[in-house]
Amino acid sequence: MRKNPLQVVNTDKKKINGFSKKTKAERRAWLVENFLQPGQGGEFLRFDTADVALQGVIDNFSENTVANFPLPFGVAPNFVVNGTTYAVPMVIEESSVVAAASAAAKYWMTRGGFHAEVVAAEKLGQLHFRWSGRPERRAALLTGLCTRVRAQTLPLTERMESRGGGVRGIRWKHLPEVSPDCYQLLVSFGTADSMGANFINTVLEAYGQELRRWATDSPELNDDERDLEVIMAILSNHTPNCVARAWVSCPIESMNLPGSGVDAADFARRFKYAVDIARQDPYRAVTHNKGIMNGVDAVVLATGNDFRAIEAACHAFAAQSGQYRSLSQCRIDNDTFHFEVSLPLALGTVGGLTKLHPLANIALDILGRPGAHELMGVMAAAGLAQNFAALRSLVTTGIQKGHMKMHLQNILSSFGATPEERTSTETHFAGKTVSHHGVRGYLEDLRG
Amino acid sequence: MRKNPLQVVNTDKKKINGFSKKTKAERRAWLVENFLQPGQGGEFLRFDTADVALQGVIDNFSENTVANFPLPFGVAPNFVVNGTTYAVPMVIEESSVVAAASAAAKYWMTRGGFHAEVVAAEKLGQLHFRWSGRPERRAALLTGLCTRVRAQTLPLTERMESRGGGVRGIRWKHLPEVSPDCYQLLVSFGTADSMGANFINTVLEAYGQELRRWATDSPELNDDERDLEVIMAILSNHTPNCVARAWVSCPIESMNLPGSGVDAADFARRFKYAVDIARQDPYRAVTHNKGIMNGVDAVVLATGNDFRAIEAACHAFAAQSGQYRSLSQCRIDNDTFHFEVSLPLALGTVGGLTKLHPLANIALDILGRPGAHELMGVMAAAGLAQNFAALRSLVTTGIQKGHMKMHLQNILSSFGATPEERTSTETHFAGKTVSHHGVRGYLEDLRG
Repeated sequence: MRKNPLQVVNTDKKKINGFSKKTKAERRAWLVENFLQPGQGGEFLRFDTADVALQGVIDNFSENTVANFPLPFGVAPNFVVNGTTYAVPMVIEESSVVAAASAAAKYWMTRGGFHAEVVAAEKLGQLHFRWSGRPERRAALLTGLCTRVRAQTLPLTERMESRGGGVRGIRWKHLPEVSPDCYQLLVSFGTADSMGANFINTVLEAYGQELRRWATDSPELNDDERDLEVIMAILSNHTPNCVARAWVSCPIESMNLPGSGVDAADFARRFKYAVDIARQDPYRAVTHNKGIMNGVDAVVLATGNDFRAIEAACHAFAAQSGQYRSLSQCRIDNDTFHFEVSLPLALGTVGGLTKLHPLANIALDILGRPGAHELMGVMAAAGLAQNFAALRSLVTTGIQKGHMKMHLQNILSSFGATPEERTSTETHFAGKTVSHHGVRGYLEDLRG
Repeated sequence: MRKNPLQVVNTDKKKINGFSKKTKAERRAWLVENFLQPGQGGEFLRFDTADVALQGVIDNFSENTVANFPLPFGVAPNFVVNGTTYAVPMVIEESSVVAAASAAAKYWMTRGGFHAEVVAAEKLGQLHFRWSGRPERRAALLTGLCTRVRAQTLPLTERMESRGGGVRGIRWKHLPEVSPDCYQLLVSFGTADSMGANFINTVLEAYGQELRRWATDSPELNDDERDLEVIMAILSNHTPNCVARAWVSCPIESMNLPGSGVDAADFARRFKYAVDIARQDPYRAVTHNKGIMNGVDAVVLATGNDFRAIEAACHAFAAQSGQYRSLSQCRIDNDTFHFEVSLPLALGTVGGLTKLHPLANIALDILGRPGAHELMGVMAAAGLAQNFAALRSLVTTGIQKGHMKMHLQNILSSFGATPEERTSTETHFAGKTVSHHGVRGYLEDLRG
């Protein structure tokens, strides 16, 4: 029972043509007029920067912008990774994440630090097409096809090759489960210090054009092999061969938790038990890995990388065995505790927003302008640190103690509490469950 | 070959004690002194708000803050979902996402709009413990245990129950693959319009305390059933029964793409083929779903929700069959095109940052202060719109055309290009491949 669309378009002021062509001020005014209260327009201005050129840079990252949405940029110091001390920039809206990463970094700083290595750094792209040939012909045709597409795209790839990247290999897959005529070129790339999305997509689209010409004019093809339709060309965010591994290790007797009253051996045993549960139970594994990603994504955002790409890759990697499992593993060998994570991290330290976003740029400065491999290691260490801190809380004091403290601070801020009111409220709620309702009631009593 | 940690601590100025206790100005100064160049301290100030109280609110979301990290807050208008017209707030750093969502929204606005429904809204939490009893004893003991833990946590749950939420059910699982003594209470919750993490975690931790008491004093237990060790209590981010479904549908003859030269039937056929590939090929599915999440996460961020939680849930959901697959599906029945997505979206419209973040609060105002179910529908529609726009580009013009246009604007911003330089550069690079190197060269020539 669809409404008459023409009628709706004409009478509904909430519909609009040419919104993207309007100025930012006009877009704000339209929102206030149609969706907000008259006084609310000022909200959009509160985080604007006075520097007009700088504001233009941020606005240009996206479209239809009406405001800057601020996320807190914090720093987790004391991260020792492969012997180097980093202060790790983290951008995240969730309380406790930066505090937890910092606590874990400091804990491991005196226990040998984090170790990290890049296991592999292969990126992938896919060119899908329909083709009238028989699948068994691929073996004979692949070399000639590769030679053609690679020669044709030389102008696009030579700069990347000079930086150590380029096209590494091409496989020709048949996807009969989609359709008998469905094929894919799965192309392997090196992209040096860039994430490589633009490079890969540009090369693949050029491959698509050359593939069409090849079908038309290649002397290697029979006439019944010349029907070819390119469907789509784009990188793959599944990067199971672009992986960083990070680990920590120390004697169990060093796993003391000062002030906790928890015995080192008992802590190690409970910790390993908790990781083992996340290896086996998908309901636990999702949450466990979400904690890892709290640390990873905070660094991804801070360094101007794309968290949707990293998230998709990491969770697909966690599901690769056919069951969704934890990305980290723990073992205890000969009284030594060992905890590690492997993560597919297809990131960049050049290109994209890494230099364009002024705070991503300074985040990379704080990290010492790392290359992609170094940043992969730091990011994996941040994920492992986050996981360690979360599990430490979970198997000792429980997660709510720290959360409630942070939660209380946020609620107090929202009520504009004075320092005196804060102190009084903190004392009152120490050890108690914090709720918005409860804090409001307490403050109301306090204010009389 | 570990370095002597004590020596490292004493000599390395990049290590620090009490960083979180320092003022923001002190933290900035320490970063500049140890990791940056002297002039760079000003970078941290550029996005500060002049309103000190407001700045304090943002700083309090996280820890160790040194700056506001701005993300562009944009709006995608013309989103018709279940007959209501929304301007959808989107916070995202990636170019083209808001433009693509807007284009898809407008396309479907005149073709019946988006339809959405919440299929189920169950949240889950887990209490893991070691227990000395035999697994077959669970059936006899569960009712008594449930009665005790639920009675004990009544003060925690009654407010949520008055809002329509609360504890829905408790299952007692055995996890012999972890250890013969490994057990889990899998607790099902309703959390009304809140995401519910604090509520669930608080209830579960209280369950843990009561479980310990039950093991000690319950008359239903034999003496050899009284060894019980609580390992951890926390919500699950795997929410396969908290799902919103969104879909679009129209006659194939209406699927015209004005100005593209692509025939409606051909477009629908190629579109479905591309979705079918993503159903079958994991390397394509990860990228396909990443595109969906571009739309979802932009709304998640704008409304103060937790994108790590939503990402983890959605990708685990995509892997539930044992193979990672696309979250959307396409079918063509009797000349009608049908495209839909199902997404687990455990979000909140009250609690957390939804009200505390001033721009999340206004994002929810723009959306008309939706409840959780309504926002789930809008978010699923935003994901579907994003997926539709990406596939439309991929199977018609290719993805790079739009990307390159945006990419060029970003590069021009980074070089502080004048309006005249922009026009000239845009004309020069029309239809050409855009690279940072190439644009710099062109601008240098232009500037002489």
